[in-house]
Amino acid sequence: MRIAQVVPLQVAVPPHAYGGTERVVHNLTEALVKLGHDVTLFASGDSQTSARLVSGVDRAINFDRNVDAAAHHIAMLKDVYRQAHAFDVIHSHLDYLTFPFLEMTTTPTVLTLHGRLDAPESVRVYSAYPGANYVSISKSQKRAVPDIHWVGTVLHGVDIEDFTFYPNSGDYLCFVGRIAPEKCPDRAIEIAIRSGIPIKIAAKVDPKDEDYFDAKVKRLLKHPLVEYLGQVDETAKRELMGKALALVLPIDWPEPFGMVFIEALACGTPVLTCPCGSVPELLRDGVTGYVRRSVKELAALVPELHAISRAGCRAYAKQRFDTRRMALDYINIYSQVQGRRAPFDVEERSAAASVVAPTLPPGITGDQIERVALT
Amino acid sequence: MRIAQVVPLQVAVPPHAYGGTERVVHNLTEALVKLGHDVTLFASGDSQTSARLVSGVDRAINFDRNVDAAAHHIAMLKDVYRQAHAFDVIHSHLDYLTFPFLEMTTTPTVLTLHGRLDAPESVRVYSAYPGANYVSISKSQKRAVPDIHWVGTVLHGVDIEDFTFYPNSGDYLCFVGRIAPEKCPDRAIEIAIRSGIPIKIAAKVDPKDEDYFDAKVKRLLKHPLVEYLGQVDETAKRELMGKALALVLPIDWPEPFGMVFIEALACGTPVLTCPCGSVPELLRDGVTGYVRRSVKELAALVPELHAISRAGCRAYAKQRFDTRRMALDYINIYSQVQGRRAPFDVEERSAAASVVAPTLPPGITGDQIERVALT
Repeated sequence: MRIAQVVPLQVAVPPHAYGGTERVVHNLTEALVKLGHDVTLFASGDSQTSARLVSGVDRAINFDRNVDAAAHHIAMLKDVYRQAHAFDVIHSHLDYLTFPFLEMTTTPTVLTLHGRLDAPESVRVYSAYPGANYVSISKSQKRAVPDIHWVGTVLHGVDIEDFTFYPNSGDYLCFVGRIAPEKCPDRAIEIAIRSGIPIKIAAKVDPKDEDYFDAKVKRLLKHPLVEYLGQVDETAKRELMGKALALVLPIDWPEPFGMVFIEALACGTPVLTCPCGSVPELLRDGVTGYVRRSVKELAALVPELHAISRAGCRAYAKQRFDTRRMALDYINIYSQVQGRRAPFDVEERSAAASVVAPTLPPGITGDQIERVALT
Repeated sequence: MRIAQVVPLQVAVPPHAYGGTERVVHNLTEALVKLGHDVTLFASGDSQTSARLVSGVDRAINFDRNVDAAAHHIAMLKDVYRQAHAFDVIHSHLDYLTFPFLEMTTTPTVLTLHGRLDAPESVRVYSAYPGANYVSISKSQKRAVPDIHWVGTVLHGVDIEDFTFYPNSGDYLCFVGRIAPEKCPDRAIEIAIRSGIPIKIAAKVDPKDEDYFDAKVKRLLKHPLVEYLGQVDETAKRELMGKALALVLPIDWPEPFGMVFIEALACGTPVLTCPCGSVPELLRDGVTGYVRRSVKELAALVPELHAISRAGCRAYAKQRFDTRRMALDYINIYSQVQGRRAPFDVEERSAAASVVAPTLPPGITGDQIERVALT
């Protein structure tokens, strides 16, 4: 199949550090090439890929506020759609900027939405294009806009073999990610203190979260059980997670997909978290660690972590979150949309929606999702 | 003529405070309605207009970093172009986000570019759509992308009658705008100090310019000749300018159009500035004040301000920058593009470009521009 992958230009593919979307697209692109597909990657020129690279800009533009990324993206999309006839499918990760281009070609476009969708402007712009071919990265993500034309849910894949397996854990908990209110580092620290186990925190503070850091987190870092490492690189992050007793990330926001959960499992490290957003779809209470609503419950389960098999965690990740599974899921969706342009009118939408069966992530049944969510 | 005006949603039309583009579009819309045209304004729902208002969002969304303005804009543009057949012309102030919609209709679109065009991503995105119908707000603005399909230059218009004329000046200079390196408040203060005349500064500091303010401007504000008023409202700004001996704004960046120059002239207040960007097109040395390259030269001319007629300044503004003149210029352009869709391919561009005569701003000849620029 002739496939175009179109990604944001802020970060190279694969990213050197932060860049969730670009990492996923890298994993997907490599897996599609391995499966024998003819893939063209539209990305920054400093990307490294087994696919054909079309440079959208010489070097990744980062998140410099003085550079207008959308202008670059519109120009790149023009280039993509000018040659749309050369592809069987265009897979865009550029979100709503892609919309006005959809009607320019009979080549179908698949859009994976990578972010949270519940902002009013998100609901509005997706609802303005209800008939595009949307893919969610978890079923939970779809809740804010359930009535647009979802063609499937594809959970992200990780190159599990690229992660070292740590069969034996160290004697500390870890928190990895961002110091942000929705990630709840304060709750993670409370779990560590309640259970009397040290916690290592590898996390960056974004400028917008500096006030939160100063007001709510800084003083907690002084506790003797807490070690704050700041931002660490990918290698250090993996080793830190691999040697931990558990990843403790008691989020309280509807995270559309928690990549770090899967990365911890790939290392063999169980996860302690709360049943928010995609968590019930990604994790399995008692198998991948524990999923509980309260800090108190999670702290009480720290001594029970020995009951979780680290080999089982890795096997679970490999079975459900391998890049090959992700690539096959997408190929299925690419085939499904062949020969049909997106129906752009609301009138056509209901007819189209009726022929699309809901897709469950492989290996997880609807029952399981409900069960875990209610634990 | 059935005209759609499409503006950004960050600020209501007319703006309560900051919002250059929205103020210009307000002036244009009111003047077009007065000329008997059928105008539809796509803007935030809290706008006030004599045209038919189509609300793009209930209330202006401001510049909140947590609101994704582009998502709102794409949704609004979809709505505009869905009903394109109802208009003879669509006049978009939404810049490159409009591009992918252009090909969806035979109704021609006119795009006024309001910003500086020399960033690499600007050059790139305009060059990707060389055949759109572009209008510049000064000839100087076009220099970064001379080879796209410019259909004209329309200098902004101000409702001169809405400004009080101050026939007699006070005994101070004023600086109005933003505390930003390109606006050169430090040079304005130096002019005041060199000439021994007090200066009042009414200016806001944007977050991105706080470091500049702290490092370069703060200490200068302590000088006994300097009075810093911070940000003031529109009424206070006009009174401050009207009673001033001169507006001193010795910019050193290619300002595409300096609205505040025209507002000062409308009050009868002359302008001291440098021949950057659009200045040679907007001002006339010896008539509207003085245009010189150096602080030293400008300071030396402060005692010569008495030679500038304040009534002449206002008459100059009225003759060249009235909203009716602006509206007639645009009607001319709307007529010119009737019956022709934009030529989207580079091949078509050169053919199209050859039929478009360069437009000079009224009352200013090419020679004058050169002469002032070299003063």
